[in-house]
Amino acid sequence: MFKKRPHILITNDDGIRAKGIRHLWNSLKDYADITVVGPSNEQSAVSLSITLRNPLVIERVDWGVTDDIWSVSGTPADCVKLALHAILKRRPDFVVSGINRGANSGRNVLYSGTVAAAIESVMQGIPAIAFSVRDYVDPDFSRAEKYVPLILKHVIDHPLPSGTLLNVNFPEKDFGEYKGFKMAQQGLEYWSEDPSCRSHPAEGNSYYWLGSQVKQVEEREDSDITWLRRGFITAVPIHIKDLTDQNHLDTAKSHFESCFIKEL
Amino acid sequence: MFKKRPHILITNDDGIRAKGIRHLWNSLKDYADITVVGPSNEQSAVSLSITLRNPLVIERVDWGVTDDIWSVSGTPADCVKLALHAILKRRPDFVVSGINRGANSGRNVLYSGTVAAAIESVMQGIPAIAFSVRDYVDPDFSRAEKYVPLILKHVIDHPLPSGTLLNVNFPEKDFGEYKGFKMAQQGLEYWSEDPSCRSHPAEGNSYYWLGSQVKQVEEREDSDITWLRRGFITAVPIHIKDLTDQNHLDTAKSHFESCFIKEL
Repeated sequence: MFKKRPHILITNDDGIRAKGIRHLWNSLKDYADITVVGPSNEQSAVSLSITLRNPLVIERVDWGVTDDIWSVSGTPADCVKLALHAILKRRPDFVVSGINRGANSGRNVLYSGTVAAAIESVMQGIPAIAFSVRDYVDPDFSRAEKYVPLILKHVIDHPLPSGTLLNVNFPEKDFGEYKGFKMAQQGLEYWSEDPSCRSHPAEGNSYYWLGSQVKQVEEREDSDITWLRRGFITAVPIHIKDLTDQNHLDTAKSHFESCFIKEL
Repeated sequence: MFKKRPHILITNDDGIRAKGIRHLWNSLKDYADITVVGPSNEQSAVSLSITLRNPLVIERVDWGVTDDIWSVSGTPADCVKLALHAILKRRPDFVVSGINRGANSGRNVLYSGTVAAAIESVMQGIPAIAFSVRDYVDPDFSRAEKYVPLILKHVIDHPLPSGTLLNVNFPEKDFGEYKGFKMAQQGLEYWSEDPSCRSHPAEGNSYYWLGSQVKQVEEREDSDITWLRRGFITAVPIHIKDLTDQNHLDTAKSHFESCFIKEL
């Protein structure tokens, strides 16, 4: 599959016991040297959280298949940090994250722990791919397995720019066979909320469930959301190196600074 | 100060009891109608985490000054979500977040809960500014107070584009008087780590402190890091609406998709 056998770090946010990470490992095990470092507990929607106030524990995990499987008692970003600086003996060539249960598409990528692991990796100069399937209930990860090494192969042959990760989503199983593959723009959809207020049965006080209703907005023709809805696998190159809004900076800079000269 | 008295939501990540949020309120209280909704506990470095697996509790907080102060038992993004959808009776004109203890500059903005509250706000269509001071130990928030309404005034007069927030940092008190004000590009510096491994005194097992060593890289002349090091207040317009790496998409799209046609 690959010209040179790559050294790959696998992580996720659903936790080391999740099905998706096993499928990700399975999809690459014949082609790569793999170390798996996943969160000991589920870390969905933790974004790029890192653990500063609690100590982190690294434990060996027995999958019965290989002995290079570890759990970290923290977030996906913690997993990447400790993998690189405490577990791995040499830097990996790639980090792959997932396969996540549920889509990480549109603007929701910023909430995702799966994508955050890829963000942390590219921040540290290691190319990264995040994989998710759009089914939340009983996802069929097996279907996706065949395509993971193909996508990685393409990224090896056509490297991502420094500071850019690839965010891949697979469509729902209801579509049947994948309709095709599209490199796409990031969609605009995001998780909004309609908080549900309830009363504690004994205390009587109120509490809220945030919920995670998807806020649908009009999508561009070439967005990941648009193509996922049509049954295509999508891949969005996401850059996080420089988030400066250069247009606004150029426009506002002179006026803003000159206003301040008077005040300072 | 402002032509029309704005309705402002104040939040932070250091928590509702932190000094910085009181100073932020104090800096704007004469010019705006303010609601404060902060995390009940410190939430530093939680990024854009949201709480899906635990219920959230909203409590009224007594600052002895106004009765529109609330705590939420979650993250900064949770605070914004519940403020907008459960606490506030009308949408605020602005969200301001901070004043954070410690800088949120360079690429560390993605770890910051303070900046995440602003990200959540612009995601929901509300303009937002994040404020931080570069001192971590005993910061002098008072010095910053005078400049908060001036910066907000400029943003009112020259609105940020949809999907863009303003990330403001004040330099360390060691500099004495602020040297000036600069609109700048996002720096490249980020938190790396040199994990510290220790042994539990009774159990003997190992645990790790992540630490948060700053990874310094060569900075652009016009970055926030560069200007903060010279004693200037900095403001970086950060856009988060579309993170697509359009150049790479244009370059890689045709080849990547045509490779896949063979496989699918």
